[in-house]
Amino acid sequence: MRAIVFDQYKSTPVLKEVDRPAPGPGEVLLKVAGAGACHSDVAVYRDFDESFGPPQLRPSFVLGHESSGWVEELGPGVEGFTVGDAFLVYGPIGCGHCRACSRGQDTYCENAATMPYLAAGLGRDGGMAEYLAVPARNLVPLGQADPVAAAPLADAGLTPYHAIKKSLPVLAGGGRSALVIGLGGLGQVAVQILRALTGATVIATDQKPEALAQAEGYGAVTVPGGPDQAGAVRELTGGRGVDAVFDFVGVDPTLALAMSVVALQGRVTIVGIGNGSYAWNFYGVPYEVELTSTYWGTIEELHEVADLYRAGKVTPQVELFGLDDGLEAYRRLEAGELNGRAVVIPHGH
Amino acid sequence: MRAIVFDQYKSTPVLKEVDRPAPGPGEVLLKVAGAGACHSDVAVYRDFDESFGPPQLRPSFVLGHESSGWVEELGPGVEGFTVGDAFLVYGPIGCGHCRACSRGQDTYCENAATMPYLAAGLGRDGGMAEYLAVPARNLVPLGQADPVAAAPLADAGLTPYHAIKKSLPVLAGGGRSALVIGLGGLGQVAVQILRALTGATVIATDQKPEALAQAEGYGAVTVPGGPDQAGAVRELTGGRGVDAVFDFVGVDPTLALAMSVVALQGRVTIVGIGNGSYAWNFYGVPYEVELTSTYWGTIEELHEVADLYRAGKVTPQVELFGLDDGLEAYRRLEAGELNGRAVVIPHGH
Amino acid sequence: MRAIVFDQYKSTPVLKEVDRPAPGPGEVLLKVAGAGACHSDVAVYRDFDESFGPPQLRPSFVLGHESSGWVEELGPGVEGFTVGDAFLVYGPIGCGHCRACSRGQDTYCENAATMPYLAAGLGRDGGMAEYLAVPARNLVPLGQADPVAAAPLADAGLTPYHAIKKSLPVLAGGGRSALVIGLGGLGQVAVQILRALTGATVIATDQKPEALAQAEGYGAVTVPGGPDQAGAVRELTGGRGVDAVFDFVGVDPTLALAMSVVALQGRVTIVGIGNGSYAWNFYGVPYEVELTSTYWGTIEELHEVADLYRAGKVTPQVELFGLDDGLEAYRRLEAGELNGRAVVIPHGH
Amino acid sequence: MRAIVFDQYKSTPVLKEVDRPAPGPGEVLLKVAGAGACHSDVAVYRDFDESFGPPQLRPSFVLGHESSGWVEELGPGVEGFTVGDAFLVYGPIGCGHCRACSRGQDTYCENAATMPYLAAGLGRDGGMAEYLAVPARNLVPLGQADPVAAAPLADAGLTPYHAIKKSLPVLAGGGRSALVIGLGGLGQVAVQILRALTGATVIATDQKPEALAQAEGYGAVTVPGGPDQAGAVRELTGGRGVDAVFDFVGVDPTLALAMSVVALQGRVTIVGIGNGSYAWNFYGVPYEVELTSTYWGTIEELHEVADLYRAGKVTPQVELFGLDDGLEAYRRLEAGELNGRAVVIPHGH
Repeated sequence: MRAIVFDQYKSTPVLKEVDRPAPGPGEVLLKVAGAGACHSDVAVYRDFDESFGPPQLRPSFVLGHESSGWVEELGPGVEGFTVGDAFLVYGPIGCGHCRACSRGQDTYCENAATMPYLAAGLGRDGGMAEYLAVPARNLVPLGQADPVAAAPLADAGLTPYHAIKKSLPVLAGGGRSALVIGLGGLGQVAVQILRALTGATVIATDQKPEALAQAEGYGAVTVPGGPDQAGAVRELTGGRGVDAVFDFVGVDPTLALAMSVVALQGRVTIVGIGNGSYAWNFYGVPYEVELTSTYWGTIEELHEVADLYRAGKVTPQVELFGLDDGLEAYRRLEAGELNGRAVVIPHGH
Repeated sequence: MRAIVFDQYKSTPVLKEVDRPAPGPGEVLLKVAGAGACHSDVAVYRDFDESFGPPQLRPSFVLGHESSGWVEELGPGVEGFTVGDAFLVYGPIGCGHCRACSRGQDTYCENAATMPYLAAGLGRDGGMAEYLAVPARNLVPLGQADPVAAAPLADAGLTPYHAIKKSLPVLAGGGRSALVIGLGGLGQVAVQILRALTGATVIATDQKPEALAQAEGYGAVTVPGGPDQAGAVRELTGGRGVDAVFDFVGVDPTLALAMSVVALQGRVTIVGIGNGSYAWNFYGVPYEVELTSTYWGTIEELHEVADLYRAGKVTPQVELFGLDDGLEAYRRLEAGELNGRAVVIPHGH
Repeated sequence: MRAIVFDQYKSTPVLKEVDRPAPGPGEVLLKVAGAGACHSDVAVYRDFDESFGPPQLRPSFVLGHESSGWVEELGPGVEGFTVGDAFLVYGPIGCGHCRACSRGQDTYCENAATMPYLAAGLGRDGGMAEYLAVPARNLVPLGQADPVAAAPLADAGLTPYHAIKKSLPVLAGGGRSALVIGLGGLGQVAVQILRALTGATVIATDQKPEALAQAEGYGAVTVPGGPDQAGAVRELTGGRGVDAVFDFVGVDPTLALAMSVVALQGRVTIVGIGNGSYAWNFYGVPYEVELTSTYWGTIEELHEVADLYRAGKVTPQVELFGLDDGLEAYRRLEAGELNGRAVVIPHGH
Repeated sequence: MRAIVFDQYKSTPVLKEVDRPAPGPGEVLLKVAGAGACHSDVAVYRDFDESFGPPQLRPSFVLGHESSGWVEELGPGVEGFTVGDAFLVYGPIGCGHCRACSRGQDTYCENAATMPYLAAGLGRDGGMAEYLAVPARNLVPLGQADPVAAAPLADAGLTPYHAIKKSLPVLAGGGRSALVIGLGGLGQVAVQILRALTGATVIATDQKPEALAQAEGYGAVTVPGGPDQAGAVRELTGGRGVDAVFDFVGVDPTLALAMSVVALQGRVTIVGIGNGSYAWNFYGVPYEVELTSTYWGTIEELHEVADLYRAGKVTPQVELFGLDDGLEAYRRLEAGELNGRAVVIPHGH
């Protein structure tokens, strides 16, 4: 079968012929419906090498850690799936038997250091191919919903969902507000999730006017970048500050913005891996503010994201590419030329 | 001043002249904007006597435990209020210095048994009068919002809000559902609050078609009464059952309905004081269902209800009556002839 | 190998020769260290038949749903285990890929109705044998701790642990109290867990003086049965009532006791499957009391139970029996002649 | 009456004759049993002036924000207190009617900026005097327990209690650990509270051997300062890291220590106002760690601290001084010559 393969460090991926995988014990083979292209793929093939980056991400493997597909074949010991049914794929794959994996949070697998991979598409073959084999427990049913547009939910949906779910306690009740910093793929989904799950005023900010317009379409109140950004945000909260801030950029200025607008007893979650720093000081932050980070999510949470998608409450914006055009999808991702998540559809739509 | 007074057991209240109250230490005198008539007032003057009902509710006192008004005069030791500003009144008044009162939950005052009253309008003079004196801490600011339509929020808003807020953990996330049983004043506000604060599918049920229609206007999916009621509710949840049930009636059949449709690990809150019973049995209820009751709410929660009202997310439906027509308001309440909460407006609108 | 087999309805189990199991895909074969005998086993072979009881529990299978052992052999696809290492076994086995199983709560598997078994020892072969095969994810490491005395933790430890963990919010802080009703195997462990995890005053009650003495040894304050039972419990709380009640009996009188002593805003968890009923009424229970049930627990919680055991904070009292004496263990269990949990040790101690 | 008064900036307090206060509306006059001397008093008289420090803390006022006493006289509108009964005093005094004050969290009074004081002893007269007047709601009953040794609980007890209570969720369950950095007055009480309320392994660290010995007496495992400090802490957690860290020092090195030993999904609370900074970076901290601060606590929490004290679970170590020796108490506090909290007892013991 054809697949988009990361086959050497510091080099763009290649489209090539590889063996179709056979599902191992406990695994299911999917015919791929869609596979999203993610900025972290770019980090894998641009930035990492033998001395930098997680050791599990050495070449060669098929890219694609945001995938969906139809059941094609069951591996040994697997029951309860019908060929042709559509599923979303939970990407992270841990040891499967530690405490973290037992609760479906493979991202924090206690044996990650000795695992040969981190996720489907990150160290082992992912979804940028005609077929994909993953453990049965990583499959989340999509029912009658379109699996193609669902693919980005596996990361661009699950990551903000997890961050938001951990922040729901500070958003529970009347008079609350949330701020989304950075309105790319994840940020736009974050706005939709916040609107779907909470009664908070959702404020969104970005440098790009078209991103602000899209967020307004999802129900956000927006604030453009610029010198008045923090003041404008704070004013929208009646001066009180924001209860829950989500920073999807993660550079120095966005961390500073986040911490400057958060309310007393609020929560700031840094999602974006922009490698920014913030000089925390007792007197520089309102009392009891929680500053935290987040990484991907749990299997059960992906079920809940699929619930929101099936109910029409969260819909990622996508641009579709055939497998032949997959490398072009990555080129446009790097060039900032995409309007929505690039999804590769190996078998058409 | 004129006031509607409960002046003897088992008798309708009377409109009569009483002394205008003087605000005591720590109290504020309000010029009343609105006072809601509540079913529990009827219980007070119809059902109670020396041997039945809370001893604090002996005559004579001015009715009205759902009130709003404008600051008229400050009692000794009170600062920080401007004459003419509009406030909603938190009705319950406990000792003010026990553990429960310290957290603004006077409903559970540890010294209630020795207190001479339970609330403004329940044992001490309430809002069905031209003026009302209450402790300063019982005042919740309304800003520029209309205080008249706000009055019912003090009970018909706060009571469902408190019940819902305690249930938010089981409603947090995608794919959740809530059921409101009984679509009178509190039930209709409950639908609005659930829609405002959660992403749950809100199911509502009642015997009256017009109540169902109103709830649909607030965004609920409705199920009429009848033999298929439980089945229809369950079907709307995909067979899984309801995560959070709120019973605003509280009679045997509604308790049975609530417990028959709740999901595994769900929560059932009985709000209505219909004196119903339910025969709880380990094998008759899904695992880990919580069956609980509720009573009014906290001061801080009333601030949050006011936030929702000021944001236009919760608006009680009201019918207005002058003080002269206040007894007629009670007559129509008892006769079931009201469309909305009856609010007495002593100084017009 | 030899095993204690439930081979026909309404009949005592038999000790007989069966095939040694081979570990399937994703499974591990354990050499059994210990297997606890549980009252629910008695229900299986005494009470159930084709028309009564879960259909998954039809004969024939090896008993024992509280097991521990040493790794003997790995099935296909399993890595990361060392032969000879000691593990506790999480008994419930669901489909492995639904939402509930994904969070390690196989007890609430969404596909339970179509599963051919409920747990190792309940529908599929359990630990009352020389060897036992279970999914790798069901194994909880014991490190250097004695696996024999650990065996009962898999049910008699996990069940109260789960119930208590869900009640920790009402026990968090100074001045709280808990009540354990019924001081058999689970109740004695409950006392230990409550003492280990909370600062609550732990009150324990039972009909048997020796059970009370044992609970006192674990740090409980005890109340004997009798007409003054509820009054004595309440007095120990300064009249306020108990914050968290755990009923390990579950008959009418214990349910009534639980509900009569619980505090305002407290929580009552019925654990014991005594089939009792309680006539719940709004006016009969303090406000906001939660009445709930519970069933077993999660894989992650069993890891936490093992942590407490390894730290010496929870130690089940056991009586050991060889496989040859296993039927005698059940006889003494039924006769009420045991002092501690009966643990069958197929390979000696 | 005599009182220890902060009467000018940058100068030691003075013992002088002042008018005995009269209890205002809603207030109670206490005969002071004990008043603790706190490091923050030193900041008030050593560091602050017109241009630095909260404007509410301008001279002149009686010091002492950790106080206890016996009811002497009731102000207008106060009922329900018996002369001679002993109470602990909740120090913070906000406007009394905002949202934060309504829940008994005067520390976060929304009107603090316009209030003329922050607490009894911080801007208005405190407990370092023969008599003290405070709002009735600020009184927490001590029953038969000794009010003198209780005095420090009002700050040195309540501050760690609040920080710990917010951290209880990450400490709930088996296998958890907590770290206390800095074993002065608050840190020693923190060790006691953690031991009383949780099952966590309590690790404590300080530079002083005698402080370590005292913490060991309260049940902590200790780690001395030095280059191996972080490694030794981590080793005590089996390499996993600490679930909840409490830093009672708050300087650069202690913040760095806290963040270097915290576990994945753990929580770090900075309590000490050492003005340290920490350069937070996404890649420098385990995922989902919460970094937060804290300030004093709520009235209800002080009730719970009193519960622990009355149950003998938390006992501050004190050194007693007469009012005549009160200035000496401050001298020894500044000189680091105290073994325990200095408590001034105006009426002897």
